[in-house]
Amino acid sequence: VTRYAATLAYDGTDFEGWQAQARGRTVQGTLEAALGTLTGAGRVPVFGAGRTDTGVHALGQVASFDLDRPFPADALVRALNGLLPPDVRVLHAAEVDESFHARKSALGKTYRYELDTAPVQLPTRRRHAAHWAEALDEPRVSAAAALYVGRHDFAALASAGSSVKTTVRTVTRSSARLTGGTLVFEVEADGFLRRMVRSMVGGLIAAGRGARSIGDLRSALAGRDRRAWPAPAEARGLCLVRVHNAAGASYPGPRGPVLP
Amino acid sequence: VTRYAATLAYDGTDFEGWQAQARGRTVQGTLEAALGTLTGAGRVPVFGAGRTDTGVHALGQVASFDLDRPFPADALVRALNGLLPPDVRVLHAAEVDESFHARKSALGKTYRYELDTAPVQLPTRRRHAAHWAEALDEPRVSAAAALYVGRHDFAALASAGSSVKTTVRTVTRSSARLTGGTLVFEVEADGFLRRMVRSMVGGLIAAGRGARSIGDLRSALAGRDRRAWPAPAEARGLCLVRVHNAAGASYPGPRGPVLP
Repeated sequence: VTRYAATLAYDGTDFEGWQAQARGRTVQGTLEAALGTLTGAGRVPVFGAGRTDTGVHALGQVASFDLDRPFPADALVRALNGLLPPDVRVLHAAEVDESFHARKSALGKTYRYELDTAPVQLPTRRRHAAHWAEALDEPRVSAAAALYVGRHDFAALASAGSSVKTTVRTVTRSSARLTGGTLVFEVEADGFLRRMVRSMVGGLIAAGRGARSIGDLRSALAGRDRRAWPAPAEARGLCLVRVHNAAGASYPGPRGPVLP
Repeated sequence: VTRYAATLAYDGTDFEGWQAQARGRTVQGTLEAALGTLTGAGRVPVFGAGRTDTGVHALGQVASFDLDRPFPADALVRALNGLLPPDVRVLHAAEVDESFHARKSALGKTYRYELDTAPVQLPTRRRHAAHWAEALDEPRVSAAAALYVGRHDFAALASAGSSVKTTVRTVTRSSARLTGGTLVFEVEADGFLRRMVRSMVGGLIAAGRGARSIGDLRSALAGRDRRAWPAPAEARGLCLVRVHNAAGASYPGPRGPVLP
């Protein structure tokens, strides 16, 4: 067998998230079916670097899978894009070492969240940006974003019922800016708990509208109690922008021009 | 009766253009039905500044209509947005002088066209940008855009079978730039023939890929023969950004923040 890695972009609006389910249209299930059709091997198991939720988008999801016979990487990209529906695209693919595994090899991820704050959201933005029809105070939003940087126990920002070994994560970048009425939040970490980015945005909104002070948020984060944390923001504003693999890892993925 | 003007934004993907038809979902028809529901007066006739084609979007379409009784403008915006589907939004409305007519009062329009040239188009872009999977030469694209500036007979760029009094239009701005693999073309004129902007983009593509020289395009424009002009570009990349009314006209519409 030959192992491949691929970089995927998708519009999550019409998918029930990444992870394959018995019912429902998912990105993983769609990709596994396309690979099955391509190889004639039935469903081909695919591993993704991150399990995006329903309605969440990706510009740089990474997936790995094994094929029984070698396939030229450029031909694999074109053949898969011919078989996949238009809301998911393979941007790049490469043969990788068999030690590579999309999830286990991921050292970190970058997410971006967009939130329009104009009274009426433009219809052309409604699939890829959330809407909060209230002006937010930029200095307070930025101060809240800065709270997340560093190594913290993010238990207060995890969704209920998730079973992870540890809720400690290290955030290496967290910045928010308000431009033309749109809040753009970018965050980079060694990993994310389920709904963690959306909870982070919930914190930014609460700070920006003055419902919570920065001190309140700092205490709520330290208290590790998710009932004390503001509600998570809508899924549609969230996008998995990039997966970070080790420098020199067998699959660096595409760089630069493909990712805005 | 009281006359109103409104600024509209829509995602044209799922509309069969602006103009109401016996069958088919149109922006004008949808708006007339919503106003009919609001007033209880059956269908209320609406006039638009420009008849956008199937798949073409708007950030600043202007419409005018008469209501039997006065309606507070802010309440009109909110009530209409409550009745309209999510792919069309009223951004602003105002009571206007009865001399105002959305089409007749329009002195000019600005359109924007976006074209992605990366080998694979990002799925999140597919509804609002066209795709041409070939690198284009920026200096040649810019030189072609500059050809359109001024007063010209644009017969070569009109669609077949349109019956207008004159095909002469004055273009006051026409500029194209390539940023991160996306061509953004903005054009402003006192009026546009049917498919004229898409034909302009067809010219930019032909120049940018080297299929036509700037001299070829200049001759084809001067020759007024539409068979000599490159094919029009896809509708989905096109957006009516702004309608220009006279300085001091009774409906200036929204400014600045609402339009990116």
